[in-house]
Amino acid sequence: GAAPAPPRGRRLSGAGGRAMEELATEQEAEESHRQDSVSLLTFILLLTLTILTIWLFKHRRVRFLHETGLAMIYGLIVGVILRYGTPSTSGHDKPFSCSQEDRPFTTLLVNVSGKFFEYTLKGEISPGKIHNVEQNDMLRKVTFDPEVFFNILLPPIIFHAGYSLKKRHFFRNLGSILAYAFLGTAVSCFIIGNLMYGVVKLMKLVGQLSGKFYYTDCLLFGAIISATDPVTVLAIFNELHADVDLYALLFGESVLNDAVAIVLSSSIVAYQPTGENTHAFDAAAFFKSVGVFLGIFSGSFMMGAVTGVVTALISFFFTKLHCFPLLETALFFLMSWSTFLLAEACGFTGVVAVLFCGITQAHYTYNNLSVESRSRTKQLFEVLHFLAENFIFSYMGLALFTFQKHIFSPVFIIGAFVAIFLGRAAHIYPLSFLLNLGRRHKISWNFQHMMMFSGLRGAMAFALAIRDTATYSHQMMFSTTLLIVFFTVWIVGGGTTPMLSWLNIRVGVDPDQDPPPTNDNSERRNRTKQESAWLFRLWYSFDHNYLKPILTHSGPPLTTTLPSWCGLVAHCLTSPQVYDNQEQLREEDSDFILNDGDLTVTYGDTTITANGSSGPHTATTSLDGRRTKSNSEEALERDLGAADHEVTSRGTRLVFPLEDNLMCLSGFTKV
Amino acid sequence: GAAPAPPRGRRLSGAGGRAMEELATEQEAEESHRQDSVSLLTFILLLTLTILTIWLFKHRRVRFLHETGLAMIYGLIVGVILRYGTPSTSGHDKPFSCSQEDRPFTTLLVNVSGKFFEYTLKGEISPGKIHNVEQNDMLRKVTFDPEVFFNILLPPIIFHAGYSLKKRHFFRNLGSILAYAFLGTAVSCFIIGNLMYGVVKLMKLVGQLSGKFYYTDCLLFGAIISATDPVTVLAIFNELHADVDLYALLFGESVLNDAVAIVLSSSIVAYQPTGENTHAFDAAAFFKSVGVFLGIFSGSFMMGAVTGVVTALISFFFTKLHCFPLLETALFFLMSWSTFLLAEACGFTGVVAVLFCGITQAHYTYNNLSVESRSRTKQLFEVLHFLAENFIFSYMGLALFTFQKHIFSPVFIIGAFVAIFLGRAAHIYPLSFLLNLGRRHKISWNFQHMMMFSGLRGAMAFALAIRDTATYSHQMMFSTTLLIVFFTVWIVGGGTTPMLSWLNIRVGVDPDQDPPPTNDNSERRNRTKQESAWLFRLWYSFDHNYLKPILTHSGPPLTTTLPSWCGLVAHCLTSPQVYDNQEQLREEDSDFILNDGDLTVTYGDTTITANGSSGPHTATTSLDGRRTKSNSEEALERDLGAADHEVTSRGTRLVFPLEDNLMCLSGFTKV
Repeated sequence: GAAPAPPRGRRLSGAGGRAMEELATEQEAEESHRQDSVSLLTFILLLTLTILTIWLFKHRRVRFLHETGLAMIYGLIVGVILRYGTPSTSGHDKPFSCSQEDRPFTTLLVNVSGKFFEYTLKGEISPGKIHNVEQNDMLRKVTFDPEVFFNILLPPIIFHAGYSLKKRHFFRNLGSILAYAFLGTAVSCFIIGNLMYGVVKLMKLVGQLSGKFYYTDCLLFGAIISATDPVTVLAIFNELHADVDLYALLFGESVLNDAVAIVLSSSIVAYQPTGENTHAFDAAAFFKSVGVFLGIFSGSFMMGAVTGVVTALISFFFTKLHCFPLLETALFFLMSWSTFLLAEACGFTGVVAVLFCGITQAHYTYNNLSVESRSRTKQLFEVLHFLAENFIFSYMGLALFTFQKHIFSPVFIIGAFVAIFLGRAAHIYPLSFLLNLGRRHKISWNFQHMMMFSGLRGAMAFALAIRDTATYSHQMMFSTTLLIVFFTVWIVGGGTTPMLSWLNIRVGVDPDQDPPPTNDNSERRNRTKQESAWLFRLWYSFDHNYLKPILTHSGPPLTTTLPSWCGLVAHCLTSPQVYDNQEQLREEDSDFILNDGDLTVTYGDTTITANGSSGPHTATTSLDGRRTKSNSEEALERDLGAADHEVTSRGTRLVFPLEDNLMCLSGFTKV
Repeated sequence: GAAPAPPRGRRLSGAGGRAMEELATEQEAEESHRQDSVSLLTFILLLTLTILTIWLFKHRRVRFLHETGLAMIYGLIVGVILRYGTPSTSGHDKPFSCSQEDRPFTTLLVNVSGKFFEYTLKGEISPGKIHNVEQNDMLRKVTFDPEVFFNILLPPIIFHAGYSLKKRHFFRNLGSILAYAFLGTAVSCFIIGNLMYGVVKLMKLVGQLSGKFYYTDCLLFGAIISATDPVTVLAIFNELHADVDLYALLFGESVLNDAVAIVLSSSIVAYQPTGENTHAFDAAAFFKSVGVFLGIFSGSFMMGAVTGVVTALISFFFTKLHCFPLLETALFFLMSWSTFLLAEACGFTGVVAVLFCGITQAHYTYNNLSVESRSRTKQLFEVLHFLAENFIFSYMGLALFTFQKHIFSPVFIIGAFVAIFLGRAAHIYPLSFLLNLGRRHKISWNFQHMMMFSGLRGAMAFALAIRDTATYSHQMMFSTTLLIVFFTVWIVGGGTTPMLSWLNIRVGVDPDQDPPPTNDNSERRNRTKQESAWLFRLWYSFDHNYLKPILTHSGPPLTTTLPSWCGLVAHCLTSPQVYDNQEQLREEDSDFILNDGDLTVTYGDTTITANGSSGPHTATTSLDGRRTKSNSEEALERDLGAADHEVTSRGTRLVFPLEDNLMCLSGFTKV
């Protein structure tokens, strides 16, 4: 959870006798504990300051600086103060030159004048750094264990992203989002990796490189920096009610490419060419890496989905939990967190698992929760997400001055900026071109430019970069990542509003309303839909007819969806509430979790137009948009041009997207 | 926060080259990280299981076992499995016998074949334990750093206690609660300490003692075990709506004696007799300890109160924060947490500071929050409290089998049980006798018996005991504390319902209704009140007339309470909302935070009667209880027998406690 990171230091618990030397040790530990508290307090005060300023900004409607940018600035200021304002207390001990066996132990027992003390391994220190590392206790204290970012701060951010996903717009653009996230991130990673390898070679020629920098390091940098995080852009989109499909594309891409980037970086680390020559390309190792990627990704995905389903089942069977929202919320929280741990325990990626867990929870479990628990869980994860995100961004600001192993190389930094620009361009434009070939309604040029522009790097890139800062190459990568995050968050964050108006992207859109229709050939459209979406259609009807009724109290009763000879089984599995609450539930969760009905008729990729709609159909929207009721499967059939034209009402209220609805009707008329 | 404790292990970040030995280290670290996840997962699953069983129990109205008792049982079972079911992987390295300087460093640089590795000090290990400690990796992993309990898990529990304090009944019995908490805990601590010193001497005679056990250790044990935690009893009281004053006495005592016990144990640790003979009584050191006690307690109290007031001021001035409940909640959370850190940073006790912070927040800040934030903050801390509490109790169950340094000494354990029984008896009965001399309405015998019976030991005793388990005496104290917690939680928890009926304590009381009146001499009563309560009265009117209007949007406008020549200042300091919202706010928060009005007329100690009321007045209650409106100060005056009999309505709605109301009227009639 977003969970206060515990003070890293601790009081010594080994005060055996009353000897003076132990008193001294105890006092030292006490001092260390105090400094821990002060360092955490620094972050808390930073966050408090950020919150108060955010309030001021929201109050005054300032949009050129987002809260995350603000948190970074405050972090920077405090970093400068800590760096140059605090006395340098050289508390570091001299190296202890006992020759140990060939490899370091994780725990060490040291015999100090007859008493045994236990030490744990913290990490390697490069010999050149021994004397200038950590002279300042305060600087050391504000440096967190990198795993804190991965294990404590990222999960609530990612879970919240999955849990608050606006499903309708997400699924409507699913194909494009998956393409951007998977193909796009891979392309970006390889392009940046190769460009950076060129830069590194250049640096070696010019003599700017004073350490080792392998090809795999360059690829790792590509993976690290390919995770976009347009939190600022999306916040402004949300505030201005910018185009929902552009929002869905950007949000979906950034959520999924975080997951892809994590797994990609793990796979690159797993790429270990056999033999001595680590520069050469090794096909076996490459395919092993691809296998690792696929294994980790699908494993994490499964893990997240399964925990989500289990939680849904628990909340389904323990219906009386409704009376105890506290228990329900606690259970929900624990199950979601256990996904993370389970995935980590199995060697998968917890963050990815938590993302898919969030999506599954929102899809199934959310329907089974009591009204109070719905708002409780939402609010709980909102607070955790907010605190974690702002903490990471203030830490980033702080790290620019307090991190002690920075290596700023101008050539590498300029190269990196060029590379991320080219990497993003090389995946947005060609992919959009390819997607537009398949999409009925094209991703327009200004949308592509906006997506290009919104390639911010944020918390995930930072967390990936700080994870390993042991070697020269990783330190340089970390410093460069930090600068890229600063630059993109400030420039892109500040430039979003001007960019939106410059690109003529419409704002003030009602998210529940659908994009305006364009004139198109409905037959071609139907054909395209049938060709491209059969897998999704299969999944959708399976989910709607079987999974939803089994796992939640919503959806059609199984007695109607299963064949009649399964009557008894269907009756046993169907919750009695389904019959009663079906209608009610649909009404309730229509805002946060969108109706399935919406999915049915909008599963394909829909047009994204930027310049507003064209005339006659728009007026009809508000009148016709929400009027028809139908069983979703029939709606799907009808939408796909099936023979049955009847519009029956079997209890599932469908929100027909205007466009499809109108187009279908006109299609039928033509036939 | 209740804050997931982070996995204690970490991946190594020092993988410089690609040498095989480092790969091995990395794999080992990976393995360690995996085990960390598994161990945390164990706890999560334990909590999940507990929640599901609690649900079952609540559903079936099972009262003989409370959730905390249940969490302990599950913990025990898993502890047995971990202990006897997992293979003993002897992963401990041989002691590393380099002679270091005179005292151990907190960090250590070790030169391993040319590379430098950093190690951090974990603690001392007694030489005899080197070979049987930590053979089992899994057992080691489920053993948390004791500081986790103090710094992560206790604060939300204690804060929640302060924040959800039912103020009316608490303040009504304030004098008695303070007496029980301060005098009672001190008496209990010294009696238990001395009795245990006798037991220890006996053990030494019989030859049962194989290590050192000083007098200060005995006193420390007294302090540790004096913190009562009747969470089970109070949960049952809540469910059965048992007598509210008994509830207030037990709850108030347990909350405050936790604080007293923490500070007491710190002071005892600070008791360091000068010279060699640590057994002798040293007056200087004793007074130093008393000074430390007073200093830490008042410092922590101030710290908590000040942060509460600062938060109130922030929420007072940033009124527009109302529009952003997320920001408001986050701010509230951060400020409350910063109290803890600030106190720790200043060398005070964070847990105590957080308690008083919670009380202040509930008194002032709560009034300034938006309606949504009120429920958000309440729910957030409720969840954190619930998770933290159940985590501690499952950990206790687990610790009985997984803690590796248990020393169970039958004589000591039996002695401790006798001592805590005598210690509780020696403070409940004499103190109640003394209090009854001053109280108008006596604490009846069955209430005293119930309080005696409810002396459970819980999370606080455990956290204090596990804090230091380095020496022989501390290990024995820890094991004994664990057994006492088990015994009291199970026996007392199961016996509460029978005990209530056996002692004829009335249940089914409406908490908003006041205890039935008894016939008493009102003049004597008024005199007693005036004598004993002038300090409280002074504070109350100051708080009501000046602090509340300055810090919150409730209370009377300053323009009416300040002298007329302060008109301008008063007008500036008074929030315009005060005039508008006064009435409304009173209505809203009457359930959670009780009206000030209630305090005014019920500040004295009121009768606690056990056997229901006697006739005629009861019927009047519902009719007259809530009818009169009055400015609270006037009400106070009137209640104190002042001349002015008018009942004016100036906007402050008073819920008159029936008894005082009726008695006053009858008193006036007599005069």
